[in-house]
Amino acid sequence: MKTLTVDLGDRSYPIHIGSDLLSDPNHYIPHIRGKQVLIVSNVTVAPIYLDKVKSALTNFTVESVILPDGEEHKNLDILNTIFDRLLEKHFDRGVTLIALGGGVVGDMTGFAAACYQRGVAFIQIPTTLLAQVDSSVGGKTGVNHPLGKNMIGAFHQPACVLADINTLNTLDDRQLSAGIAEVIKYGLIRDTEFYVWLEENMPALLRRDPDALSYAIERSCQIKAEVVAADEREGGVRAILNLGHTFGHAIETGMGYGAWLHGEAVGIGMLMAAHLSSQLGWLTNADVERVEALLIAARLPVHSPHTLDGKRFIELMSVDKKVLDGAIRLVLLRSIGEAVITSDFGIDTIENTVANYQHRTDRDTP
Amino acid sequence: MKTLTVDLGDRSYPIHIGSDLLSDPNHYIPHIRGKQVLIVSNVTVAPIYLDKVKSALTNFTVESVILPDGEEHKNLDILNTIFDRLLEKHFDRGVTLIALGGGVVGDMTGFAAACYQRGVAFIQIPTTLLAQVDSSVGGKTGVNHPLGKNMIGAFHQPACVLADINTLNTLDDRQLSAGIAEVIKYGLIRDTEFYVWLEENMPALLRRDPDALSYAIERSCQIKAEVVAADEREGGVRAILNLGHTFGHAIETGMGYGAWLHGEAVGIGMLMAAHLSSQLGWLTNADVERVEALLIAARLPVHSPHTLDGKRFIELMSVDKKVLDGAIRLVLLRSIGEAVITSDFGIDTIENTVANYQHRTDRDTP
Repeated sequence: MKTLTVDLGDRSYPIHIGSDLLSDPNHYIPHIRGKQVLIVSNVTVAPIYLDKVKSALTNFTVESVILPDGEEHKNLDILNTIFDRLLEKHFDRGVTLIALGGGVVGDMTGFAAACYQRGVAFIQIPTTLLAQVDSSVGGKTGVNHPLGKNMIGAFHQPACVLADINTLNTLDDRQLSAGIAEVIKYGLIRDTEFYVWLEENMPALLRRDPDALSYAIERSCQIKAEVVAADEREGGVRAILNLGHTFGHAIETGMGYGAWLHGEAVGIGMLMAAHLSSQLGWLTNADVERVEALLIAARLPVHSPHTLDGKRFIELMSVDKKVLDGAIRLVLLRSIGEAVITSDFGIDTIENTVANYQHRTDRDTP
Repeated sequence: MKTLTVDLGDRSYPIHIGSDLLSDPNHYIPHIRGKQVLIVSNVTVAPIYLDKVKSALTNFTVESVILPDGEEHKNLDILNTIFDRLLEKHFDRGVTLIALGGGVVGDMTGFAAACYQRGVAFIQIPTTLLAQVDSSVGGKTGVNHPLGKNMIGAFHQPACVLADINTLNTLDDRQLSAGIAEVIKYGLIRDTEFYVWLEENMPALLRRDPDALSYAIERSCQIKAEVVAADEREGGVRAILNLGHTFGHAIETGMGYGAWLHGEAVGIGMLMAAHLSSQLGWLTNADVERVEALLIAARLPVHSPHTLDGKRFIELMSVDKKVLDGAIRLVLLRSIGEAVITSDFGIDTIENTVANYQHRTDRDTP
């Protein structure tokens, strides 16, 4: 087992990464504050892992709530079912929530913990690659609104993160690839060497080689922890973690939450960011092709939906948390391994990029 | 105009108290961060004050959302109408929300500001006495759940508070008395001299004497600011501000939000806390009578609803943010002017107190 630390003063917490960690509750029990635990999971994950976690918590009052699976359920109504259960069970400020599932479960559990009685503790047990390398770390929590993704939320750090790579064995291939998109992101924004490692080890990741997965998760979490420690509430540098996300959120919102997986939308979004960066003379055409090749190797889509026309795409991009005083700000690439945040480009460059990646055929899903 | 400061480091902010402050936007314009403003008000307050505030903000993009009036609308569904408007208007992280109304408007606006894009700025312009002396100061925001009051929320401090005492002239008598309940609270928990002042000046407050109101608001805000500065997130002493609230929340939740005004429920709740304190030998019977006399002088109810039987009352009290590991903790009085937080009493003392104040007749509303 490897342990990393997210260094945030009195809000610091460990990330444990390894095989079969769920079998040893000593990894997370020290982070349960009181006697009450609510496990939040979903209909896909609960049948596989819920009993394992529940049975480990013999000395606690344990309840669970099972959410429907999918980004389309990440909204205030479903969030309220978590509050319902907490209040039906008279759980108090000493309760600890455990998020057992992917990014949607983690984001909603964390937001419920941020708001319940104005803030209680929670633990992340991410069971998808995307959640293990990205959404479970850093304290961003929230839900979607029909008009914009992740628009309602809070910064609320978990008490610990437990990434058991064995849970990835039950993940379907599409989810695995979606997670790899966020792994590629870390190479693109901050680590050329890691990017090269990914180019060489993509086949190993796709066949779920444990050593390759462990290393990819560890390096991703290291980079995320460094960036979050430098800028917890995204006043500046943290925004580089959103490479591809402004494009990606437009696809997710425009196509209806759940039609595209978050990682899929971020994947094509990163390619679009690379293309826009090449228009500004920062990347070469060869760099853009290199990004496209890695996404294809990871079995990720490299076109955006044909029904999302350019005008609508850009309109959706303008509803984004990075927009400030009306200007679209984007994370772009100075080179492979170095990201910058800028609004210093013409609207025509966005239009070019959006037009360039729109799918020519009638395929609207990856 | 008097200005107090809530001293919270980089989250410090001023409270301006005075006559006709709404006419001079210079009091709050410096606290608007960007170019976008959303004013949140309600159907009662908006017709009187909304245009005045809107017309002062000539250099900003100003939108408004008008909520229904009353505690029964302080829920996630109505909260969502604030998010709807923010997103329809493409308002970004630079937006400033202005709460123009009473406690419900302030709590919901503050919570919307806490959650919108994970946190934007907001300004409190409280237009009821209760909001001016209590709910607008200190950063507690949130909404109710059918099973418990203020159970979903956040700590999110405003950028400034503007208490214009002229707005109290349009307040109905019942709302005025409800606000006075929270004023009495400050005397009871921390300031015997102020309590005596209230006994002497209750007639002046009820006839809305501007000097008396100004002093009562100023002294209340001073005490609240001191307590909040000492314990922003209610780890300890801040809980004394909840004198009467555990009893009061039981009435509000049990009778349906809005049937009793919050201040009315807190008023009888403080009397019950005084009675329970006398059972523990802390207050004399004369002290309890003195509290009852001041509530009567303030035209506040001194009985709880007859339909809320003892068993149900105590069950409702056990769903409270001060409950910890199953034990009901209450704010009680060592003397008039000194509060303590304790769970060191038998359930029979609560039962006695609840039984003692239940209305013998069929009156269920104040």
